[in-house]
Amino acid sequence: MRLLNSRTNFKALWLVTFIFCVLSLTFWSRQCPEEQARPALSHGERGDYYDQEKPNPDALPNAAAPPHHLSILTADSSQLNPNALPPGRHKYQPIECLINDEYSIECRRENEEVYVPFNFLEKYFEVNGHIAEYDGYDRFEWQHSYSRIYQPRGPYSPEGIFMSFENYNVEIRDRVKAISGVEGVPVSTQWGPDPYFYPIQIAQFGLSHFSKNLTEKEPRVTVFERGDGQVGTRWDVPGKQAQVESVTDKGCSCRVLQFHTDVLPAGFGPTLMLGATSDQILSFHVKFSPSAVLSNVSVVVDTSYKKQYILHYTSGTDLISAKGTNIYYGIGPRPDWSLITRDLLCDLRKGVGLSNSKSVKKTKITIKRVSKVILQGAGRISNITMATSSHIPQFFDAADWFVRNQDDAGGWPINVVRKLVDGMQELPPGWYSAMAQGQAMSTLTRAYTRTRHRRYLDAALRATKPFRVPSEKGGVLAVFMGQHRWYEEYPTTPSSFVLNGFIYSLIGLYDLQQTAPGEEGKEAAQLYQEGMRSLKALMPLYDTGAGTVYDLRHFMLGIAPNIARWDYHTTHVNLLQLLVSIDPDPVLAGTLKRWVGYTKGRRAKHN
Amino acid sequence: MRLLNSRTNFKALWLVTFIFCVLSLTFWSRQCPEEQARPALSHGERGDYYDQEKPNPDALPNAAAPPHHLSILTADSSQLNPNALPPGRHKYQPIECLINDEYSIECRRENEEVYVPFNFLEKYFEVNGHIAEYDGYDRFEWQHSYSRIYQPRGPYSPEGIFMSFENYNVEIRDRVKAISGVEGVPVSTQWGPDPYFYPIQIAQFGLSHFSKNLTEKEPRVTVFERGDGQVGTRWDVPGKQAQVESVTDKGCSCRVLQFHTDVLPAGFGPTLMLGATSDQILSFHVKFSPSAVLSNVSVVVDTSYKKQYILHYTSGTDLISAKGTNIYYGIGPRPDWSLITRDLLCDLRKGVGLSNSKSVKKTKITIKRVSKVILQGAGRISNITMATSSHIPQFFDAADWFVRNQDDAGGWPINVVRKLVDGMQELPPGWYSAMAQGQAMSTLTRAYTRTRHRRYLDAALRATKPFRVPSEKGGVLAVFMGQHRWYEEYPTTPSSFVLNGFIYSLIGLYDLQQTAPGEEGKEAAQLYQEGMRSLKALMPLYDTGAGTVYDLRHFMLGIAPNIARWDYHTTHVNLLQLLVSIDPDPVLAGTLKRWVGYTKGRRAKHN
Repeated sequence: MRLLNSRTNFKALWLVTFIFCVLSLTFWSRQCPEEQARPALSHGERGDYYDQEKPNPDALPNAAAPPHHLSILTADSSQLNPNALPPGRHKYQPIECLINDEYSIECRRENEEVYVPFNFLEKYFEVNGHIAEYDGYDRFEWQHSYSRIYQPRGPYSPEGIFMSFENYNVEIRDRVKAISGVEGVPVSTQWGPDPYFYPIQIAQFGLSHFSKNLTEKEPRVTVFERGDGQVGTRWDVPGKQAQVESVTDKGCSCRVLQFHTDVLPAGFGPTLMLGATSDQILSFHVKFSPSAVLSNVSVVVDTSYKKQYILHYTSGTDLISAKGTNIYYGIGPRPDWSLITRDLLCDLRKGVGLSNSKSVKKTKITIKRVSKVILQGAGRISNITMATSSHIPQFFDAADWFVRNQDDAGGWPINVVRKLVDGMQELPPGWYSAMAQGQAMSTLTRAYTRTRHRRYLDAALRATKPFRVPSEKGGVLAVFMGQHRWYEEYPTTPSSFVLNGFIYSLIGLYDLQQTAPGEEGKEAAQLYQEGMRSLKALMPLYDTGAGTVYDLRHFMLGIAPNIARWDYHTTHVNLLQLLVSIDPDPVLAGTLKRWVGYTKGRRAKHN
Repeated sequence: MRLLNSRTNFKALWLVTFIFCVLSLTFWSRQCPEEQARPALSHGERGDYYDQEKPNPDALPNAAAPPHHLSILTADSSQLNPNALPPGRHKYQPIECLINDEYSIECRRENEEVYVPFNFLEKYFEVNGHIAEYDGYDRFEWQHSYSRIYQPRGPYSPEGIFMSFENYNVEIRDRVKAISGVEGVPVSTQWGPDPYFYPIQIAQFGLSHFSKNLTEKEPRVTVFERGDGQVGTRWDVPGKQAQVESVTDKGCSCRVLQFHTDVLPAGFGPTLMLGATSDQILSFHVKFSPSAVLSNVSVVVDTSYKKQYILHYTSGTDLISAKGTNIYYGIGPRPDWSLITRDLLCDLRKGVGLSNSKSVKKTKITIKRVSKVILQGAGRISNITMATSSHIPQFFDAADWFVRNQDDAGGWPINVVRKLVDGMQELPPGWYSAMAQGQAMSTLTRAYTRTRHRRYLDAALRATKPFRVPSEKGGVLAVFMGQHRWYEEYPTTPSSFVLNGFIYSLIGLYDLQQTAPGEEGKEAAQLYQEGMRSLKALMPLYDTGAGTVYDLRHFMLGIAPNIARWDYHTTHVNLLQLLVSIDPDPVLAGTLKRWVGYTKGRRAKHN
């Protein structure tokens, strides 16, 4: 006020006028946050879809009372919104929410309604949600379960898709160390950092490729070398140090490529340019010469990391190793013709993510271009092919592994220590798993159905043997309270009664009884029927009224129930869906319906 | 700019300066909604407790980020809050919440946080909450369970309080038709509209009065008539039609009041003025003369309904009837001296709420004044007393009922049809309940301990008999899968394995083995130990990881689990608390801890 009272000259007044002018403009243009809601509408800003004059057409269906509109100030605050609710109806305030007399969180209050932050609900109830934008505005998508139930494509058939395994990609799991070059199947670090062959993983690998083969479209296949010796046009052979020629092989009575090189640095040798872009499944027939110390089929790939990597498939037997941008897979000496099928992207990622821990490190590397194939050492090669997929050879890699690795007791021993929970004895290496036996049956019966080779069926039939041997005697049989036979995924003492593994074993037995009808399949049929009786009797014990338990450890040990997390719960649902399609029992169907409901937040009634 | 370029005189410049000054102030003082949070504080407006300078001491412990302030409009918008957050951080809008892809509700969004209306959560999760005001502001009190866990006052003793029954008030339950005048115990309509004696309810009535006697303070007792014949000073006797005199009674060798009247209209007869206000337990000794057709002791009460009601205790045997403001209870012919104890408020409410359905109608009627006692018919009366409570006589009414009504098989047959659930056979009238047997034991042993009258202990010992008889042969014994003996609250076929009733029966057996040690209590001890073994083995089957199931019907029938509503869950907890105080078994203690946690929203871990 002193400023105004004092005597000012014209210039000073101009300055004051100017200052107030600037101040006026500044304050006027200072937007209140809410004021940005409406103008932003036309700017398409996220979430600002709300318009008080046009009520949201997606308003909640059960809101009989008029929705409480919010106070939104517009840029022109002198305008009165004729639709505004009377004053006092808009209170929107923080309110303390005192949770179970234990602690407080900050909620919001609007008249008599209280709004609870999802941040709290998420942890308190373990529900899931996120803001998603589509159709031009944001929604909050609340999901009770984060895991998906796969709708079966049709009734289950032992010759068809296995459950929903067409959606599985076993080999990319971080507990798969690598795909063995020697065996063509995944090597696991599921229960320990030392890689081992885990028959369950191998069967799932096989069954997923079998199922993908039935559901995916025909792959694009490009043969780059048929062994017909178009050498020179496509092969770049470095001078004296290497030879490549097309010869007639007596084994296959066909033209193949014979190669021989001196010991050369990595990346040098007869080179076939491919330039394949999106097709990342490499396959070839190969036969290494025992005369060479080490032979290699190497593949150079351009990657999204802007580096070239070289995948070396060597005549050694080491599972996997990496040195700089060189990744080595031993595919074994292979003195006889055999087919190698490799998923180059998988092989690259396992190499880039190689670690000494249980988990392969995550990497997002992709292959931009499969550049070339380089040969080293000595041997014969043919049918160098790139394809978008090659499921059937991968499936048979799994089936053949089961044929080769079954022991005299009919089992596939699992060579890793497994400790399920305190209070149960740990399983020493060499245990059988009913799930592994069953999944092997499902793999082997499909291999038999496709080929009619007895070796597959015989292995599957032998695989029933551990089902009659109690867990404590090295088998997989548990008996619930002396009455209900149960085939144990983990044959612990005391028994654990893991649900999903048991049902997988039942599906294997079903596949076998269907594939080997009559006397031969009688044992499988009996085991299946007894198991199904147990399942129907005990299934209610897995039902919490809001989800399922994974096993019956709580009953066996007198401890807390081991609630199945949502992806195990949906596995239970997916398995039940399969069973319901082959057994019309109403208890199964009723349970399935209820268990599906749990994933949507429904619960069993209380009394 | 034209304004600045044009020629202005000094006055005009002053005017412009002034205008800009006003504009500046106007725009400057135009409050953004957030800025008003603080002024509202001083207005003491509901919920406006939040103060940015002094963070809310009850803020959630995990809220690391600063809370998002809210828009609150106040009447006085000319104040500026210097603590305002920077603009753009305050978006508060409706957002559609899409629930499990099934339906939508309207939520609120504030920056990246989404707020979900409690109205939805309440139904979806069945949680409880309400706005409560105390300490000068409102809080939202979230309660996971609506039911209360009673902290035990100390370790359990068979001579002490029964569980937390001092908090029970059995007689006011709407499924108690009335307190029988003849028997002095509640008559039930629990499982059907026709009233019957339900031994469980009778025992709970007795045990609650026994426990209240140990926990409540001494009652205030006023004796209005000792039989010493102060007639004339306090009795108003209408002329020729009635006589009242003090006589010496041979039976009691004491002075009592003898009365005789003609047949008179209701409310007429020798009258004793009481004028008692808050004491509502009436008791008197009475002996009706068989010569009178009908005798009455009637009590006139002034009520909150501004009407007088008359409670007639007649020598008839009808349970209860009502006609206008007259309510009749038959207390039987009573040719010998006996003590009548009546809860006048309970008797009034049962009469006012009398209906033909299973439930007594709710009424809020209260007694303002117990005005007078009127005698009709013929008999002798003494010790007319009003008291604030009279628990021990009520307890013995229950204990004596059990002594009088036990059958040869040691049981108290329940004469009502009971259908537990579809799939189980209905129990025809006459079934025994292990819970009734056990609760009777708890009542009878306490009566024995207090009186040392063998009839109470003998009845309790006989009550073990049905525990060895299988349900299908009329007993209460079920055996879970041929291994675990279980005493059935409802001895259904198939068995139902109701948890709470079983534990009540164990407590009865425990009381009995403690009260009758040595050879006599051996059977009870054995039944108790076997039952406890079963309980510890099967308890995990009742644990859902977030609550409990009421029974094992889901296992027996292959249906949905029957989740225990919160008051049954807390009954399970209260029962476990009792057991833990007498048995240090770690499974019991661990289960108790977990089950208490469930009432606070904690859950068993998932895998």
